[in-house]
Amino acid sequence: MDMTASTPDHRNCGRIGELLSTIGDRWTLPVVVTLHDGPLRFNAVRRAVTGISQQMLTRTLRILERDGMVDRTVHPTVPPQVEYALTPLGRSLTEEAFRLGTWVQAHLPLIDNHRAQFDDRNG
Amino acid sequence: MDMTASTPDHRNCGRIGELLSTIGDRWTLPVVVTLHDGPLRFNAVRRAVTGISQQMLTRTLRILERDGMVDRTVHPTVPPQVEYALTPLGRSLTEEAFRLGTWVQAHLPLIDNHRAQFDDRNG
Repeated sequence: MDMTASTPDHRNCGRIGELLSTIGDRWTLPVVVTLHDGPLRFNAVRRAVTGISQQMLTRTLRILERDGMVDRTVHPTVPPQVEYALTPLGRSLTEEAFRLGTWVQAHLPLIDNHRAQFDDRNG
Repeated sequence: MDMTASTPDHRNCGRIGELLSTIGDRWTLPVVVTLHDGPLRFNAVRRAVTGISQQMLTRTLRILERDGMVDRTVHPTVPPQVEYALTPLGRSLTEEAFRLGTWVQAHLPLIDNHRAQFDDRNG
């Protein structure tokens, strides 16, 4: 295989795929897009992401925190307030994902068209 | 939410996520990387992608073909030879995915470091 600058190392395909899967997870992208404008408390994120359950939001934020994409800050108020913010790493990945998202968005009609043709041929 | 040029439309998050999941699938990225250098016959792809089964390669190529990312050409030889090639659409998506892949590759040590720290704190 030709290893041009634009081709990721074959050996890292698994790891890269794993991270793409995480980003492509049902809730990760909506949560990250929501945090892109600034830090938010748990319930504010929950209100902004239509349809997400408390459990799934907890799980999604925890995975993002573990990867270093999101910072979790507990403010010592009564009751304590927990705020979530994208880290510089998370912001950087988000910009890259947005770029790919923009591509996907622009090409969705074409992809849908291909799918319909394929299903007609193979129905 | 601020809809800057770089922010994909919130309503398309599901579709974008779905496509990212497909790319991040265990086998899609290795197959696409393999086809990036030029068209190949089924068995040549299979030899190049270590560990993939015949069934999984058939399934992966079919999904890529359905989305219009891969063209399947049957040459009328005896026995017939079936060749797979990235379409211009597939090549374009691949370039975008490579860009994200390059980012992931460069930041993997940092992400791994965050994970180890998180697991120490929460172990």
